[in-house]
Amino acid sequence: MAQATSLPRNETGIATAIGSLKQQFGDRLTTGQAIREQHGHTTTWIENQPPDAVVFPQSTEEVSDIVRICAAHKVPVIPFGVGTSLEGHVNAPAGGISVDMGQMNEILAVDAGDLTCTVQPGVTREKLNTFLRDQGLFFPIDPGANATLGGMTATRASGTNAVRYGTMKDNVISLQVVMADGEIIKTARRAKKSSAGYDLTRLMVGSEGTLGLMTEITLRLQGIPEAMSAARCSFETVDDACQAVMATIQYGIPVARIELLDALAVKAANAYSKLDLPETVLLLLEFHGSESGVAEQAELFGQIAQDFGSTGFEWTSSTEERNRLWQARHDLYWATLQLRPGSKALATDVCVPISRLADCAREAVAKAEELGLMSPLVGHVGDGNMHMAPLVDMDNPDEVARTEQYVSWLAELAISMDGTCTGEHGIGQGKRPYLTRELGATMRYMAAIKAALDPDDILNPGKILPD
Amino acid sequence: MAQATSLPRNETGIATAIGSLKQQFGDRLTTGQAIREQHGHTTTWIENQPPDAVVFPQSTEEVSDIVRICAAHKVPVIPFGVGTSLEGHVNAPAGGISVDMGQMNEILAVDAGDLTCTVQPGVTREKLNTFLRDQGLFFPIDPGANATLGGMTATRASGTNAVRYGTMKDNVISLQVVMADGEIIKTARRAKKSSAGYDLTRLMVGSEGTLGLMTEITLRLQGIPEAMSAARCSFETVDDACQAVMATIQYGIPVARIELLDALAVKAANAYSKLDLPETVLLLLEFHGSESGVAEQAELFGQIAQDFGSTGFEWTSSTEERNRLWQARHDLYWATLQLRPGSKALATDVCVPISRLADCAREAVAKAEELGLMSPLVGHVGDGNMHMAPLVDMDNPDEVARTEQYVSWLAELAISMDGTCTGEHGIGQGKRPYLTRELGATMRYMAAIKAALDPDDILNPGKILPD
Repeated sequence: MAQATSLPRNETGIATAIGSLKQQFGDRLTTGQAIREQHGHTTTWIENQPPDAVVFPQSTEEVSDIVRICAAHKVPVIPFGVGTSLEGHVNAPAGGISVDMGQMNEILAVDAGDLTCTVQPGVTREKLNTFLRDQGLFFPIDPGANATLGGMTATRASGTNAVRYGTMKDNVISLQVVMADGEIIKTARRAKKSSAGYDLTRLMVGSEGTLGLMTEITLRLQGIPEAMSAARCSFETVDDACQAVMATIQYGIPVARIELLDALAVKAANAYSKLDLPETVLLLLEFHGSESGVAEQAELFGQIAQDFGSTGFEWTSSTEERNRLWQARHDLYWATLQLRPGSKALATDVCVPISRLADCAREAVAKAEELGLMSPLVGHVGDGNMHMAPLVDMDNPDEVARTEQYVSWLAELAISMDGTCTGEHGIGQGKRPYLTRELGATMRYMAAIKAALDPDDILNPGKILPD
Repeated sequence: MAQATSLPRNETGIATAIGSLKQQFGDRLTTGQAIREQHGHTTTWIENQPPDAVVFPQSTEEVSDIVRICAAHKVPVIPFGVGTSLEGHVNAPAGGISVDMGQMNEILAVDAGDLTCTVQPGVTREKLNTFLRDQGLFFPIDPGANATLGGMTATRASGTNAVRYGTMKDNVISLQVVMADGEIIKTARRAKKSSAGYDLTRLMVGSEGTLGLMTEITLRLQGIPEAMSAARCSFETVDDACQAVMATIQYGIPVARIELLDALAVKAANAYSKLDLPETVLLLLEFHGSESGVAEQAELFGQIAQDFGSTGFEWTSSTEERNRLWQARHDLYWATLQLRPGSKALATDVCVPISRLADCAREAVAKAEELGLMSPLVGHVGDGNMHMAPLVDMDNPDEVARTEQYVSWLAELAISMDGTCTGEHGIGQGKRPYLTRELGATMRYMAAIKAALDPDDILNPGKILPD
């Protein structure tokens, strides 16, 4: 596909760098094909472009050594978490060295009194939350997949809890970063607020490995709420559900999660997760707060939902039932693939101002039908973020072409509504054409920053910026 | 003072640029001394370095024209809001053109359904909130002074409400910016979330006019809470009060404001604002939420405060009484100056992880006493942000020297606690030495970004970065 064009390779440099790295890392550097292919693999339809070698550092100093060696020979360096990205972020279009952070997976500090922790980039979100639970703390950002915190930081991830707790940009306090010249820096101190110069923390969050390799991440934590409850209700149309979401947000109810599934997505969830939800448009919610606060929120929401014709409003504070529903939501990617075995899903990721959400969803569903695409709709609708995920038969060139047409059309639609082509997945390889459409002349200054911080373009080349 | 060293002036370029600007702007360009001096003036002890001319644009295109003319002649451009900054941000150490945004003061759009608005940079926070009130909305960031939103964005301001609503970094959605070459860009679309490339919005927020001139600011708004109540209580020691704050934050009570005043600050407030608060350490709080939520929060806080020996806990939902207390808090800068008529106040601005707040406050008060400085303490303590504000007789060189020693010592103390020399005021001219102490090698990459985006260093030179 077009998205996976190759870039010129520096064969001599790559061979020399691999030789040097082999000397230092021994068995922790591999050039075996299976491992290389796995490190070009993401949850996507974009073709695999494996790196030339994969190295497994165990410390910040080792990451710095790797970058210095690669910088000396102008060889690409591609950081790797667990490969849950959706836009080909870990592909190696110019070859080079994949830096697998899997062995840098220590939780370095939990400062419960400050509601902060510091982790290495290979720690996964589930590992962190399991570790924190006994202290009554949690890290709220939840993209669904059990991604690493390094990967989540690199893509500015968010997910189901963002409507209340924000995205990675709101929850990273400071970073330790290995820069393109191998220098190790801290972007900020551990204070909650700072006006200390340029916000390099936020510049690194979402930079997808193209400006530096994060080696320590200091995160903001939350106390586990006194009470949590889940609710669900059904609507006849996507439009009605979106109107209810808009009213809920505008009313100021501090929902922790508010997710939409269309009838097709519900059908997939029922089949995959053995549920018996009504197979029509569904909103799934979660409320966090005190016992009385949670009840108040659920009641208010119930009234709003009813105003928009919802049926079957149910809420529960049972942990087991709550977890079952959210597990089904998390498994939706896999569930929808089962709607059409053998297909690939192309997860789009537009995000629009919430007042345009109903329009966006309605038009997106109609266009998919018009193009004859089977496409479930799920969305973090409280933020105006929705995923149409066409299920594509990759052996059918006409269908692939219609899907590409759809993805491009949808990005344009969101942009025409003052929205973005990506609310949380990032640009990677797949969304580069749309980013330029979205931001125009702004791209020149992004390119200037990239050139200033990585003059030889060794850090994850071929991502975010146009070639 | 050392902070206000001059930089080399480009006399020919300045004269030529003023000539060109005069042609285009006529009476909206002035070189009169009084206006120039006013535009170098900030609320600070740093000496005045007036620009060579002040120009008053009325549109983004005019700002672009100004920057293009100045860029062509390599002449400094210094954006100006209303001059409430505390660190000499609007001084012109190399001369140049002050761009007064006062005539760009339109509220361009309020999208109530999206909880966003777009304003020109010269709109003040009070003007915006007055405009929003009828729609049941407000913009929460409140640095005390009636600053412009352009200035607040440029310094990454925060203030009393930040403990609940975050700082400017959390509340700016996108920016229109005139870059150093005169190009007009948008940093992002109006969607609430985005993973669309480098976060230029956050890079611009807090860049103090050194990377671009903001000409439109899209902000996140909040619904006015159903209920608000204020509370106050007194403590024997700063330490007890800080311990109560730490416990409140750790407990997760969503206080909207939690401010500390030491006995000296309370004395100043009583005298200036005609109050009769007990003249000992005071915490002032505000709670936002539903009627029952607000009562619940106040009760929980009251219990915690009592555990740390507080006395005189009172809470009120009377709007009048609430406003009287917060007006007194906002007037504190002027009130403390009256403690020692003729003195200047040097507002320090350290911010530390909250677990270190009590230590920081205790040591800071003791050191001020040791150095014989009269220094009230106020703080946005819920964020670990505190201001010691020594009142200095500028005609007493020994006292000035002791104050400089104190300010430097306090920055080091905060840094040693993994905190920052500035929680919200920014770096400007005054804090440049401490920023380098705080971030070390990181400064090199800030300088690289500055050089990439403003290669001739025309945008507010002599600020943030070392010479």
